[in-house]
Amino acid sequence: MLDRLTPPAVTHPTIINEAMRYSLMAGGKRLRPILAVAGCEAVGGKRATALPFSAAVEMIHTYTLIHDDLPALDNDDLRRGIPTSHKKFGEATAILAGDALLTLAFEVMTDKSLYPGLPAETLLHVSTETANAIGGGGTIGGQVVDLEMEGAEADIAGLEYIHTHKTGKLIVASIRGGAMLGGATGKQLKALTDYGKSIGLAFQVVDDILDVEGTAEQLGKNVGMDEKQNKMTYPSALGMDESKILAARLIDRAIDSLAIFGGDGAHLVELARYIASRAS
Amino acid sequence: MLDRLTPPAVTHPTIINEAMRYSLMAGGKRLRPILAVAGCEAVGGKRATALPFSAAVEMIHTYTLIHDDLPALDNDDLRRGIPTSHKKFGEATAILAGDALLTLAFEVMTDKSLYPGLPAETLLHVSTETANAIGGGGTIGGQVVDLEMEGAEADIAGLEYIHTHKTGKLIVASIRGGAMLGGATGKQLKALTDYGKSIGLAFQVVDDILDVEGTAEQLGKNVGMDEKQNKMTYPSALGMDESKILAARLIDRAIDSLAIFGGDGAHLVELARYIASRAS
Repeated sequence: MLDRLTPPAVTHPTIINEAMRYSLMAGGKRLRPILAVAGCEAVGGKRATALPFSAAVEMIHTYTLIHDDLPALDNDDLRRGIPTSHKKFGEATAILAGDALLTLAFEVMTDKSLYPGLPAETLLHVSTETANAIGGGGTIGGQVVDLEMEGAEADIAGLEYIHTHKTGKLIVASIRGGAMLGGATGKQLKALTDYGKSIGLAFQVVDDILDVEGTAEQLGKNVGMDEKQNKMTYPSALGMDESKILAARLIDRAIDSLAIFGGDGAHLVELARYIASRAS
Repeated sequence: MLDRLTPPAVTHPTIINEAMRYSLMAGGKRLRPILAVAGCEAVGGKRATALPFSAAVEMIHTYTLIHDDLPALDNDDLRRGIPTSHKKFGEATAILAGDALLTLAFEVMTDKSLYPGLPAETLLHVSTETANAIGGGGTIGGQVVDLEMEGAEADIAGLEYIHTHKTGKLIVASIRGGAMLGGATGKQLKALTDYGKSIGLAFQVVDDILDVEGTAEQLGKNVGMDEKQNKMTYPSALGMDESKILAARLIDRAIDSLAIFGGDGAHLVELARYIASRAS
C-alpha cells in the first residue's frame, strides 16, 4: 500500500520521489500502521478499510524522522540501519522529502476514492484530528521542548510532556484514526485512546532503555546518543531499574484498557507485549 | 482569520507559536488568500465561506517561504522586510515552524466546523487537490528542479516547469479551492484554472524582473539574489524587453479567461492588472 501510494522513483523530478521512497521503504517496525489496522479490526472494521490511512501515518512518522535527524536538530547519520536522508541526498532534498511525505499523507487521508463506502464526515474528522495531533501542540511541540531541554536537569514532568507529545500523539492518532474508520463507538474509542497513551509512553521508556543497553547493530541507529547529547531520558531521570518497572506497569495498564474488546483485542494485547519485550 | 486560526504565542511551547506567527503576520501581499476569496465570490459564493481556506493557503505559502529561505536551500536572510525565520529563531525552530504551518493548514482545511453548511465531500475534494498541488509533483517538485538547475544554462522549458510548479500550482489551487467552496460549475472552474495559470506565470515573470529592477526597500527582501545564485530567470533567458512583453501577454490572456463571469469577474480583472503593475 505504501508502495502503491507513493509516486514511482522514475516520476519527474525523480530525486524527490527517490528520497521519499528511500526513507519510507527502509523498513522499521511499522508500529503506527499496525496500530491503525489493529484499531480498525478491534472495533469490527475490515483491514482494507484502514490501509490507506495506515500508509499515511507511516508517511507522517517517516517525515518526522527525516526532519529530526537533520544537522540543525538531532544531527544523526544513521537511521534504520542506513545513512539518514540528508547524509544520502543532502540537506535541501532531505528537508523537501520530509515536506513531501507530510503533504502526501494528507492527500492520502482526504482522498475519498481510497475509502469506498465510508462517510466523508469520518474522513474529515480523522484528518482534522491527525493534523491536530502532529502539529505545534502535538508531535512538533514535543520535539520543540525536547530540543529546548537538551542539557537541562532531568525532570520527570518535562520528560512526560516530551514523550506524550513527540511520540505519543501520533501513536494515539494512529489507533484512533483506524478505529474511527472502522466505525468505533465512543466507549471503544475511549478505551483505545487509553491503550494508545499507555503503549506510547511504554514505547518511549523502552526506547530510552535500548539507547543505553542495545547495540547499533540491533537498532539500526547509533546508540548512546542520548547521553552524548545530554538528553533527559527515563534511565537518567529514574534510574535503569525504575525505568524497567515503569515500562512493565504501562504495558499492564494498556492491556487492562482492552477488557471491553474480549477476544477482538487479542492482537492489541500481543502488540503491547511486543513493545515491552522488543530488542530493536 | 489568520490570527484566530493560529495558536496564541503564549500557548506552550511558546517558541513554536511565536515562530509561526512571526512569519505569518509579517505582511506580504496575501495574494493567495485574496485569490481564494475572489474565486469564491466570482462563482456567487459568500466571502465568509472561503475565509478559513484562504488562511490555510497563506499558511502553506508561508511554510514554503520559511523552508526555501533555509541555509541548505536559498540561504536568504531577509524576507518581507524582516530577518528570515532561521535568522530570528535558529534553523531547528524554523524547520519545525514550517512543518507546523503546513500541518495547521490541513487542520484548517479539513475542520468541518469552520465551514458550516458545506458538504463534507467538497471539503475533502479541496483538501486532496490542494495537497496534490503542493506535493512532490507540485510546489515541492518545482523547488527541487529550481535547486537542481542552479548554475545551469538558461532553458525556457525548464524555467516554465519550475514556475508552473513552484509558484503556479498553489496559486491555481487557491483560486480553484475558493471557487469549489463557493459552488463552482465545471465550466467556471475551467475558466478560473486558465486564469490562475496565466497570472501565476505572470507573477513569477514580474518577480524575476523586480529582482533585477527593484530595490530591497520596495521588496522587503534582498534583490539581485537570482544573479548572485546563478538562477535561471526570465530576464536571463529571454532578455528584459521580451520578459516584459511576456508578462503583459499573460495578463491579457488571464483577463480573456474571465469573459464568462461578466461583472462578477471585475475583482479578478483588477487583481490581474495589479500583478502586472506591482512594484513590490
